[in-house]
Amino acid sequence: MKDLDVDRALDESALATLFTEARTQNGWQDKPVPDSVLEKIYDLVKMGPTSANCSPGRFVFIRTPEGKEKLAPALSKGNLAKTEAAPVTVIVAEDMEFYEKLPELFPHADARSWFTGSPAMVEETAFRNSTLQGAYLMMAARALGLDCGPMSGFDKDKVNEAFFAGTTWRVNFICNLGYGDPSKVFDRLPRLSMEDACLME
Amino acid sequence: MKDLDVDRALDESALATLFTEARTQNGWQDKPVPDSVLEKIYDLVKMGPTSANCSPGRFVFIRTPEGKEKLAPALSKGNLAKTEAAPVTVIVAEDMEFYEKLPELFPHADARSWFTGSPAMVEETAFRNSTLQGAYLMMAARALGLDCGPMSGFDKDKVNEAFFAGTTWRVNFICNLGYGDPSKVFDRLPRLSMEDACLME
Repeated sequence: MKDLDVDRALDESALATLFTEARTQNGWQDKPVPDSVLEKIYDLVKMGPTSANCSPGRFVFIRTPEGKEKLAPALSKGNLAKTEAAPVTVIVAEDMEFYEKLPELFPHADARSWFTGSPAMVEETAFRNSTLQGAYLMMAARALGLDCGPMSGFDKDKVNEAFFAGTTWRVNFICNLGYGDPSKVFDRLPRLSMEDACLME
Repeated sequence: MKDLDVDRALDESALATLFTEARTQNGWQDKPVPDSVLEKIYDLVKMGPTSANCSPGRFVFIRTPEGKEKLAPALSKGNLAKTEAAPVTVIVAEDMEFYEKLPELFPHADARSWFTGSPAMVEETAFRNSTLQGAYLMMAARALGLDCGPMSGFDKDKVNEAFFAGTTWRVNFICNLGYGDPSKVFDRLPRLSMEDACLME
């Protein structure tokens, strides 16, 4: 495409991997995802921008049958079988005391004090920024050749009780990772046109 | 890297463009961003996953001096000059009646009824999914060779009043787009280690 910074812009094949041909997966190939790939994913995710570098996103990578068993009672019926079959299920979580890390993450200002005593701002900031980081996780996984299956159909209280009791972490959403089974992908659903979703000012 | 699906995985240069070398920008080159590039960004953003394809994200692309003037009174002092200098400022918004589009976007189930009468679920779904779409916007812009400058330091009520009075749209966050001035980039801040931010189950 003309008008682009061609030194940096990705080619069409990379855009297809990230966006146009990537599909939410409902079935998985029997092909493992090594921990080294999960480490590479996190190394990319952590570089994505968050407000004041607050980085509230936390990630539980569930790879073992024991971990899947802990998660299973929280899942909706429609999400159970595909989650059991996925090589990895990530709980994208938020640390509700993320601001305790700000002296380390944003050392040039007293950013911690912006949040202490402001629970509504803590909640909004944790939710917005951990969600951004959840999107970075999906983009990073796709960039490394994996497929994603994000889900919000689950019982939050049960996930929090099973994984985060006694901690300051809370679940945001869940995402299966692995190599998808193309035969289980649904038809592509319609999208809103630019006219419906955008304004030009 | 071994263990990856090399047919699909992006190369190191593309990962640098998206994640490892991309930086939040505070100054901008005098280089315009044509509307054709904004259209290409939206064409990528709209393909990213949202729960039940609900697609609540809405985007106001501000390119004109008049649009910037409308936005200026809402900005914090530290965000004003760089936003005035940016070729494009995007208001990432959420449509609080996104569910009215579900008969079109998710036609095989009565998904609209999952939301009517559940304002807390509407709010959570709109916020989570419009934030995911805001992250897709930043990744899409970077993928097309642009730089981003996301901000949450602004007066939400003023943005909503100036741009969305009488509508069901609400601001989520704001993001400058353009070609950054490398001399204005701050030093890279530290990130949490995998040990601090992740659990392996």
